[in-house]
Amino acid sequence: MERRSDCPLNCFLELLGDKWTLLILRDVLFFGKRHFSEFLASRESIATNILSDRLSSLVENGFLVKAPDAFNKQRNNYLPTKKAEGLKPVLMAIADWTIAHEEGVMDIRKG
Amino acid sequence: MERRSDCPLNCFLELLGDKWTLLILRDVLFFGKRHFSEFLASRESIATNILSDRLSSLVENGFLVKAPDAFNKQRNNYLPTKKAEGLKPVLMAIADWTIAHEEGVMDIRKG
Repeated sequence: MERRSDCPLNCFLELLGDKWTLLILRDVLFFGKRHFSEFLASRESIATNILSDRLSSLVENGFLVKAPDAFNKQRNNYLPTKKAEGLKPVLMAIADWTIAHEEGVMDIRKG
Repeated sequence: MERRSDCPLNCFLELLGDKWTLLILRDVLFFGKRHFSEFLASRESIATNILSDRLSSLVENGFLVKAPDAFNKQRNNYLPTKKAEGLKPVLMAIADWTIAHEEGVMDIRKG
């Protein structure tokens, strides 16, 4: 697929610019979630069809690797790649900004 | 409007999670763009109706202030607030990630 431009921010938005994808990566990177039902249980109440779609995109774009669970072969785990791990500083910068500028958000820095 | 959760990342995505809004803020914060026709001219070719919609949201949510141009009263300028200025580290973290992990993007660090 041809990109709209070669701007790094644009590239990021073409890959991850929506209201849901980064929440799945948050769950994987910071909360250790690994499978479909765990993502589905997050507080933002993602719909199953959106979750399926975003997980497929994340695998296709090299953020997650899908692998059968060692203890339950019926179940797949989604494991983060280095490319996904590299997003941690982005997610922390976003959290810093939101805590500084928006009311009523959880201050994760305070634990 | 009630938020999906009080997670800071979720709040950010509810405000800015789409494929276009951060490009407008990029144009304002890093390229000094101020009015509609300048945003419209950016390489990603935003559609006029999307641009209008996103500018209204950015004003409504306190990222931009709309003010008549001093030299042309017919024309409005969009000026960044402190809340918008605070996003610069987020946009830089995004650029760092993309330059490190994606092929074919402009390395803005090299100027």
